[in-house]
Amino acid sequence: MIRKYEGNPVIKPSDVKPSMEGYVVHGAFNPGATLFNDEVLLFLRTAEGCVPREGVVRTPVYRFNEDGTAHPDIMEFQRDDPDVQLKDTRGVVYKGQDYLSTMSHIRIARSRDGLHFTVDEAPFICPVVPTEKYGVEDARVTKIDGRYYINYTAVSPDSWATALAVTDDFKSIERLGLIFHPENKDVAIFPEKINGLYRALHRPNNSGFGRASIWYAESPDLLHWGNHKCILRPRNTEWESMKIGGGAPPIKTDDGWLIITHGKGDGQKYSLFCVLLDLEEPWKVIRRADEPLLTPTETYETDGFFGNVVFSNGVVERDGKVYIYYGAADETACVAISDIDSLLASF
Amino acid sequence: MIRKYEGNPVIKPSDVKPSMEGYVVHGAFNPGATLFNDEVLLFLRTAEGCVPREGVVRTPVYRFNEDGTAHPDIMEFQRDDPDVQLKDTRGVVYKGQDYLSTMSHIRIARSRDGLHFTVDEAPFICPVVPTEKYGVEDARVTKIDGRYYINYTAVSPDSWATALAVTDDFKSIERLGLIFHPENKDVAIFPEKINGLYRALHRPNNSGFGRASIWYAESPDLLHWGNHKCILRPRNTEWESMKIGGGAPPIKTDDGWLIITHGKGDGQKYSLFCVLLDLEEPWKVIRRADEPLLTPTETYETDGFFGNVVFSNGVVERDGKVYIYYGAADETACVAISDIDSLLASF
Repeated sequence: MIRKYEGNPVIKPSDVKPSMEGYVVHGAFNPGATLFNDEVLLFLRTAEGCVPREGVVRTPVYRFNEDGTAHPDIMEFQRDDPDVQLKDTRGVVYKGQDYLSTMSHIRIARSRDGLHFTVDEAPFICPVVPTEKYGVEDARVTKIDGRYYINYTAVSPDSWATALAVTDDFKSIERLGLIFHPENKDVAIFPEKINGLYRALHRPNNSGFGRASIWYAESPDLLHWGNHKCILRPRNTEWESMKIGGGAPPIKTDDGWLIITHGKGDGQKYSLFCVLLDLEEPWKVIRRADEPLLTPTETYETDGFFGNVVFSNGVVERDGKVYIYYGAADETACVAISDIDSLLASF
Repeated sequence: MIRKYEGNPVIKPSDVKPSMEGYVVHGAFNPGATLFNDEVLLFLRTAEGCVPREGVVRTPVYRFNEDGTAHPDIMEFQRDDPDVQLKDTRGVVYKGQDYLSTMSHIRIARSRDGLHFTVDEAPFICPVVPTEKYGVEDARVTKIDGRYYINYTAVSPDSWATALAVTDDFKSIERLGLIFHPENKDVAIFPEKINGLYRALHRPNNSGFGRASIWYAESPDLLHWGNHKCILRPRNTEWESMKIGGGAPPIKTDDGWLIITHGKGDGQKYSLFCVLLDLEEPWKVIRRADEPLLTPTETYETDGFFGNVVFSNGVVERDGKVYIYYGAADETACVAISDIDSLLASF
């Protein structure tokens, strides 16, 4: 069985201190997750906009300094300036340049029991390089050989792509570059080498034939990736009619690699599914759930910044239980609790 | 100076024998090129459709056999079948499945003088794996350490991506998998390692912010690629207003790596440009032409299957001259002749 924690959401935007005065936190969602020093760490996608002011359009921006640091700032445009074009909810175009109405960074939240969290005062991963100019989103953490590899979506005027970084202490990180070129997100790195190679799932965009699907890749060193294969395509169901994508790093079980994927279906509703991949040949799908593991049913999932979304990119195994952390309605962080046997028996 | 060869086009569709009876060759264009055994080899993107028949829609398809081979075939749909939807010029949708009206393979043409070519009777690279189900397009050949690496666009129901293969004899090839995931084309691999790593240019699609641009990547082994960087963006000119992309493998000169890129500008017109990259740090652009090197001016360039297109993905240096092979109007193969000093002096 799986149960949504009755104390959900475990983190709300109001629990997160804005990066600077004048910013307001709209979302603290899509948490990556890992165990570190007996604590559960969540890596919140923290989406911030600006406190509104009448007659003015205000957008968050990051200023890059010559010494390689950066700081958040606020751009102001007069609403009646003929050079200002409002662009749906995403932002403003000013003299041909895009400015986003919200910008994301990654913030850490910490918990002893996996249910009650304290959110750090300061951001953990902020835009500091041009490939991150429009924000960093949706972190996944994979522990490999004692080090913690963090991949995340890097958004910039050149599109979106997946970046890799590594840390030992969750204080400082070393950036390792873009590992998947645009347009790619939902990257999940396996926690160990298989037959001498690192493995990952990824999700290229698909604007041509077909719909966005889950792909597989392999790497000798975590930095360079190849042998790309499309391994899971959306089915013609109400749950997957638009696209599918991967979730947290795969969990090793006796039966295979367990992954929890998401589907985007009719009415842009997101749900979660279990899939099992072969242990030795992880591009082979050996079992795939027909019915969702989790769908938006609670008010905190159906209503919010973007309603009817459940999206998981962080799973923690601890004391025989599996904590499936997920973003709800692109606004809050929640958890559902299960165990490996139940998950394997669920499909 | 650069001159378009007065005998252009050097290859026309009528010079190419169809892959099977019932097929018709619409285009023999966008040639990759290399020197091999004192001959210039061109690698023609050969686009084939079906000989029309009244009341019937006919599309080319490849049938995959269980032994790993494949053969071309013809699908027929009744025009008045309610399940048949005609889809602009690209093909047919039948019961939710796409069928293309033309399909490409790679055919070799051979020449002693680089100007007069004999086209092979049979295809060189045909779809034989599912990632190539909708055809193989736009080959680039890079000679590295005595072997010939061929990258090409692999098109399938899962979108388009870039595949790598290797050959020693241009008779058989060994496929090395997809090296750049969807959506990516215009990949040009440098002919030697630089500071221990292979290098390439590539061109991801961009459906979000910005426009499709030229990216850089590096690899320890030609199979796995990373450290992606956006290095050249379209300028706001009539020649580049839609997008830009790379061309043939870079040419080493004393001044830097010379590349001939393409721009897609106003009215979907394609033109060619010279760019110089740093020899040691080839992600650094050290010079970029303001004016095009080559634009569509001749009838064979302005009129054709898709008019106003010049597109180069094959360049050969020989006897002090540079032969710039290019596709014209998505229909024929042409050549323009110059030399390194002139090209370097041209911008």
